[in-house]
Amino acid sequence: MMKKEQRINYPSSHKIYVKGKIHDIEVGMRQVSLTATVNIVNGKNVSEENPPVTIYDTSGPYSDKDITIDITKGLPRLRQKWIEERRDTECLQDFSSSFGKIRLADKSAADIRFPIVHKPRRAKNGQPVSQMYYARQGIITPEMEYVAIRENLRNEEQGLKTMLTPEFVRSELAAGRAIIPANINHPEAEPMIIGTNFLVKINTNIGNSSLMSGIDEEVEKAIWSCKWGGDTLMDLSTGEHIHETREWIIRNTPVPVGTVPLYQTLEKLNGNIEDLNWEIYRDTLIEQCEQGVDYFTIHAGLLRAHLPLLKYRTTGIVSRGGSIIANWMTKHRKENLFYTHFEDICEILKQYDVAVSLGDGLRPGCIDDANDAGQFAELSVLGDLTRIAWKHHVQVLIEGPGHVPMHKIAVNMEEQLKTCHGAPFYTLGPLTTDIAPGYDHITSAIGAAQIAWYGTAMICYVTPKEHLSLPDKEDVRAGVVAYKIAAHAADIAKGHPGAQARDKALSKARFDFRWKDQFNLALDPEKALEYYKAGRLDDDSGHCTMCGPHFCAMKLTKEMNNCIK
Amino acid sequence: MMKKEQRINYPSSHKIYVKGKIHDIEVGMRQVSLTATVNIVNGKNVSEENPPVTIYDTSGPYSDKDITIDITKGLPRLRQKWIEERRDTECLQDFSSSFGKIRLADKSAADIRFPIVHKPRRAKNGQPVSQMYYARQGIITPEMEYVAIRENLRNEEQGLKTMLTPEFVRSELAAGRAIIPANINHPEAEPMIIGTNFLVKINTNIGNSSLMSGIDEEVEKAIWSCKWGGDTLMDLSTGEHIHETREWIIRNTPVPVGTVPLYQTLEKLNGNIEDLNWEIYRDTLIEQCEQGVDYFTIHAGLLRAHLPLLKYRTTGIVSRGGSIIANWMTKHRKENLFYTHFEDICEILKQYDVAVSLGDGLRPGCIDDANDAGQFAELSVLGDLTRIAWKHHVQVLIEGPGHVPMHKIAVNMEEQLKTCHGAPFYTLGPLTTDIAPGYDHITSAIGAAQIAWYGTAMICYVTPKEHLSLPDKEDVRAGVVAYKIAAHAADIAKGHPGAQARDKALSKARFDFRWKDQFNLALDPEKALEYYKAGRLDDDSGHCTMCGPHFCAMKLTKEMNNCIK
Repeated sequence: MMKKEQRINYPSSHKIYVKGKIHDIEVGMRQVSLTATVNIVNGKNVSEENPPVTIYDTSGPYSDKDITIDITKGLPRLRQKWIEERRDTECLQDFSSSFGKIRLADKSAADIRFPIVHKPRRAKNGQPVSQMYYARQGIITPEMEYVAIRENLRNEEQGLKTMLTPEFVRSELAAGRAIIPANINHPEAEPMIIGTNFLVKINTNIGNSSLMSGIDEEVEKAIWSCKWGGDTLMDLSTGEHIHETREWIIRNTPVPVGTVPLYQTLEKLNGNIEDLNWEIYRDTLIEQCEQGVDYFTIHAGLLRAHLPLLKYRTTGIVSRGGSIIANWMTKHRKENLFYTHFEDICEILKQYDVAVSLGDGLRPGCIDDANDAGQFAELSVLGDLTRIAWKHHVQVLIEGPGHVPMHKIAVNMEEQLKTCHGAPFYTLGPLTTDIAPGYDHITSAIGAAQIAWYGTAMICYVTPKEHLSLPDKEDVRAGVVAYKIAAHAADIAKGHPGAQARDKALSKARFDFRWKDQFNLALDPEKALEYYKAGRLDDDSGHCTMCGPHFCAMKLTKEMNNCIK
Repeated sequence: MMKKEQRINYPSSHKIYVKGKIHDIEVGMRQVSLTATVNIVNGKNVSEENPPVTIYDTSGPYSDKDITIDITKGLPRLRQKWIEERRDTECLQDFSSSFGKIRLADKSAADIRFPIVHKPRRAKNGQPVSQMYYARQGIITPEMEYVAIRENLRNEEQGLKTMLTPEFVRSELAAGRAIIPANINHPEAEPMIIGTNFLVKINTNIGNSSLMSGIDEEVEKAIWSCKWGGDTLMDLSTGEHIHETREWIIRNTPVPVGTVPLYQTLEKLNGNIEDLNWEIYRDTLIEQCEQGVDYFTIHAGLLRAHLPLLKYRTTGIVSRGGSIIANWMTKHRKENLFYTHFEDICEILKQYDVAVSLGDGLRPGCIDDANDAGQFAELSVLGDLTRIAWKHHVQVLIEGPGHVPMHKIAVNMEEQLKTCHGAPFYTLGPLTTDIAPGYDHITSAIGAAQIAWYGTAMICYVTPKEHLSLPDKEDVRAGVVAYKIAAHAADIAKGHPGAQARDKALSKARFDFRWKDQFNLALDPEKALEYYKAGRLDDDSGHCTMCGPHFCAMKLTKEMNNCIK
């Protein structure tokens, strides 16, 4: 049974809302309250307040006690009004895709269907309704102001420099250097921005394969991912009930949701790649656009001409989408249909503001294949496709590797920037060695931190089960936290205003032996507390078991400081 | 009760020995046997052999089935004969340190004492007996040839380029750019080399604090650390029975063992820092030299003049040794006694070939303190001390941070190289953010991989329990594997000959669906297998649960390749 009430709790935290100045909006953030520092001055305890710390919050309404949560009803539709007020979209009477209609009419799916049917919304007269389009018109939308406030983390109030004005957001979107994935049919999602001049974002992948996992579990994983800090969520399901599972996820997810529409298309064809054709793919795109998917991974850059380059590879194609389309091209002796139909695809996407994430079907799957001719040949095509998408005002992400040794990472970023005209880069890791299955969240966090520092806008998490099995909840947590570490390390290295404030507050708490404050500021307060308790005896003195009571360096430093004073 | 028989088993692996050409030596390595690749050609199975992969092996005799292991007797004394044959040392009739004599005479320690007493060995007439000294005489010792063979991993046989000749080893040691920590009283240790032009090494820390852990557990942790790939081992015990615990560890550890002698000195003084003096520290150094400790961390570079720089810090001093000596200086208003007695220290160390690891008492303990004036002021003193140690032919390591954001890591390496005349750098991480207690093996593996790529010779592991508690066995495993990943990623990025061979063999196994070969080549075969099994149903088909049977990219690539052929 579905657990209706799902909550996200963070210790000593409460939700605050920062109001917009241009629009009537409220941006949720997490505020962590801290205890005071107590110093001994002339033998007396002198207390000094520590200001609360504001943290970028991906948990949406789940962490707001004042909002009623009911999974069977879905989240509040935050953006509904903004979208309506633009008056450039219309609510359709019925779903436009054949498949959407069939599923809705299918009585056998009644038990697993999301209980509320939201009629789909689409642009009037086929016009573009993307954030990029508005940005190019010089319009600052509520979404743009929202992300500007969200990224600032109240730095201004703390006297920190900020360049992240709504106008800056607009200009970055207009230039294609950033995107706000925001399907008009996913008004539950809180706007967030992906671009090299903003906080580094992380994507998490969930989804059942035909072998494992059910709807309940996937919804729980989605919320779980948001709890730990996932900025976007890809539903990579390949098993049964993809349509219904996705509906449940989208209605209950406060972050943008991405998919690889090809996967579902093939489910419809019983896995028969040869039968893949434009009509069924097109119907799937529309089906998902009308459900509210915010971005699609489309492997449109892998061309027939690239296939001979595979013979030099150790692990061939490791992208599922890439391998499928390569097979299709080989069997049909035709050019990639996503490439030949790319303008058609853009025509659809722009009417819902679905972003395209140009998949790298030839991403290297091992160190030996990194930065090879195939990879860069495809990247060059992705650059051409970027121009086409932008012509239609479709927002673009470029997907990147994969497995890359450290000394070859920088070149990836440089080539991507040059070839793809500054479109934001979205990489899977990269993994910096192949020899650690079971620990690929670490092999890849090393590479992800570096490439994010060099400018990658979003990094796709890898869990400890990568290459081995589907992740369970604990794997998702391990993957998300590893990637939050990589992203935050990159934010600091990039000098993002205010990124370091949390580190400083946590370290001050550590030095003060304010253990609870330290844990409450941590990426994973529960784990930190659990480990701390594992080593505690029942005393409450100012040390941990690492150094014992006599040789705690920080304790000794404090004593010495007192002595000097 | 002590478990006498300890074994290290790796799947599908056996021990091989490569003979020396100059000396009568045999260097143990691990060889992983692989199964054949089976391709379908014209409808028939065609089998193609995969050569075995040779792996650098830190497990010593524990993984050799032909050697009898008995923890109560200690490991075979591999280097005994080499040391004797140099004829520059003598076996003493009794221990030279007062404490060593007292402990040996103490009947109450009989139950916990290591059963065999090896009389200590010392240089004749106070002359240097260090590997650096021999190297400077132009002598290629068995130790030097041993590490040359060990580092090569039989690359020559595989047609790979190698510069790692015994003569190259000698020249690096003579220049101080590398060290072989090899106390003449630890003949059980297999020679290994630490230097920027060699494979990156990792150190693990074990040791009880006064609060936790016993002798059995520490010996088990030591062997456990060697199993997963720890290259050296620091015993940081601060609790009871330090002397006896260390004896058990050294007699049973096939890798160099390091300590911070100050910790034990303070135990002798019941933790009273004020009572610290040269005589008791000197006695401790001699005690440990004669037990066989291979390198000492000594915080000799932190001077009184540096203390005022602390007031600019968020977390003051986080090095235990640093905080102790800072306290001592403050209380006595005297200069650091390790600094004032540094020549005396070198006089002792050179007679046993104990290397000095110059501790960084002012390493930054948070991102905010990274690369500050205090840190670099101390580094400059470490450079001066390096020259003094080298004058005595004492081998030198330089310890480094700590907590450093990514954009400040490279400067650490550059400054260290410039200031410390090329002596090998040995860093703790660095951690690239402060906000992830519970995951600091990851925050630091990110920094460690980078600094090792830039030239750091050895990285000191950090476990998930860092800042929170003492690590247990599973934490040691997690820390070692994270650091093996960082070290290996750096070896690849540095272009170390042959480093990538293991990645390529593993990836080829992955592409062939030779699952067992893939796991057997992994850093942690057991974990990989466990995760794989977690996702398996009972079939044995060529896919995992990640993609399910239909959309496995590598399976599809193979089909396509067959189709093209």
